[in-house]
Amino acid sequence: MSSMFKVHILGCGSATPTRRHRPSCQIVDYRGNLLMIDCGEGAQLEMRRQGLKFSRLSHIFISHLHGDHVFGLPGLVSTMALHEKGGRLTIHTFGEGIKILKPLLDYFCRDTPFEIVWSEVKPGQTMTLLDTPSLTVQSFPLYHRIPCSGYLFREKPKARHLNGEMIKFFNIPIRDLAALKAGADWTRPDTGEVIANERLTTPADPSRSYAYCSDTIPSQLVAEAVKGVDLLYHEATYADDNACKARPRGHSTAREAGEIAREASVGRLMIGHYSKRYKSEDALLEQARETFGGEVIAADEGLIVEV
Amino acid sequence: MSSMFKVHILGCGSATPTRRHRPSCQIVDYRGNLLMIDCGEGAQLEMRRQGLKFSRLSHIFISHLHGDHVFGLPGLVSTMALHEKGGRLTIHTFGEGIKILKPLLDYFCRDTPFEIVWSEVKPGQTMTLLDTPSLTVQSFPLYHRIPCSGYLFREKPKARHLNGEMIKFFNIPIRDLAALKAGADWTRPDTGEVIANERLTTPADPSRSYAYCSDTIPSQLVAEAVKGVDLLYHEATYADDNACKARPRGHSTAREAGEIAREASVGRLMIGHYSKRYKSEDALLEQARETFGGEVIAADEGLIVEV
Repeated sequence: MSSMFKVHILGCGSATPTRRHRPSCQIVDYRGNLLMIDCGEGAQLEMRRQGLKFSRLSHIFISHLHGDHVFGLPGLVSTMALHEKGGRLTIHTFGEGIKILKPLLDYFCRDTPFEIVWSEVKPGQTMTLLDTPSLTVQSFPLYHRIPCSGYLFREKPKARHLNGEMIKFFNIPIRDLAALKAGADWTRPDTGEVIANERLTTPADPSRSYAYCSDTIPSQLVAEAVKGVDLLYHEATYADDNACKARPRGHSTAREAGEIAREASVGRLMIGHYSKRYKSEDALLEQARETFGGEVIAADEGLIVEV
Repeated sequence: MSSMFKVHILGCGSATPTRRHRPSCQIVDYRGNLLMIDCGEGAQLEMRRQGLKFSRLSHIFISHLHGDHVFGLPGLVSTMALHEKGGRLTIHTFGEGIKILKPLLDYFCRDTPFEIVWSEVKPGQTMTLLDTPSLTVQSFPLYHRIPCSGYLFREKPKARHLNGEMIKFFNIPIRDLAALKAGADWTRPDTGEVIANERLTTPADPSRSYAYCSDTIPSQLVAEAVKGVDLLYHEATYADDNACKARPRGHSTAREAGEIAREASVGRLMIGHYSKRYKSEDALLEQARETFGGEVIAADEGLIVEV
């Protein structure tokens, strides 16, 4: 079951693409539906490289309006228009993003075989942008040089598992099963006896959650917004050696990313948005581990992390 | 001397980037000055890969407003703004291109350390866009589904080489040498005797020329516009197997590219803008050679061709 909710890294470098890392882009694969977060230049090529189907991409969430988080969008949408993709593609971005990006797509991507829907994200707010029977996606404020939002992917509580033998033993009709899955007790129609739900079901699988935080300074408010998620992606642009650069540029160090992860009691931390100066992520990883104390993963193009 | 005028291939695929080819982009390196033609997605990364310096790029010529020829522009300009590049960057494109691209760069690339100059190319016309003491760049019409221009890079006639021994023999003063280089005869001040230029100089190096034709159907008008160039880049989107697709899509076959090259009596032909269906350029090359009869080069990312 765990492979039904995973994160693909398509780009985890900072502003300038290098030979080692592309600019920011991730894809959350939730039960085969692809949800993209940020869309740096080259996103379409990286999707193709990783065998991710354009036809399955339905939503794109843009964190903020710096070029390294959006310049892949026109190329991606143009290429999708040449492929089998139908239905709709919803692009979630600030009002300003709609103002600047919509004319561009209107011009270069006329006659797409799918509908492009623009969904306005309000900076500085927590908003539910997607609400399906099994998953919600919420935006929450990050704290960067310009308005910026993080995104929280959270599975809804799942159904309890029916105990087939007990269902059979009590001869419970199908019409009552949904209530059992939701946790209700069951009353025998013949005797009026109440059978506790725990006798008829086993616990639901845990609901998992993933939070994306890039770009941001370290903030208690962010730690609260991502409290207890199973997997946290937090930017770690700098190591200790360039810590002084982080704050004026609206970024975090790896050490600070680890602190936020610890304060938020997350399951695992993934770091990324590396400054181009680093030829290896070893120091960043080590420093994030020191403060977090738990498992830290270094994002890398092609990496797939199960949530 | 020949290495002072060369063409770098940064992308030679058609609309959809693949693992084999990037979308259209070339750089003409003329005596260390870099002039870009088209700017498909990933141009900045390919410049970096090929060791081409952002600081030396001064002009970008856009052939037409399809995404695969322009989507690399905002990322390239953003990255250049983070580098040492100063002076100015001139972007040559149609009025419509200025209308759609300028707001984008104004938004995402504020405060560039260099000036961005927009130069309007008129579709359907021959225009001189750059005129230096040694090189001119002209636009000329191509014939695609939407307005499209080719670009012709032509060296100006060069100075004849002075014959040092003869200059010394006649004791010709320095002030007269420029006229000799330009081809003038020389009159002895003492005797009035006219010394023929051919005795005092040897012929100038040939002036070389390069023409870029993508995207276009094959056209006599194009053949005339590029008459006699040393190197012609002509699109060859399809081989014979898909020849029927070429005309409705505003493209040429490799065979047709060869015909245009032959009719224009060019020195060498370089083909490119390959449809993504081709896993090898062998058939395209062979068919272009059949009709051209001369040397045909298959463009490829990283290839450097001396003009």
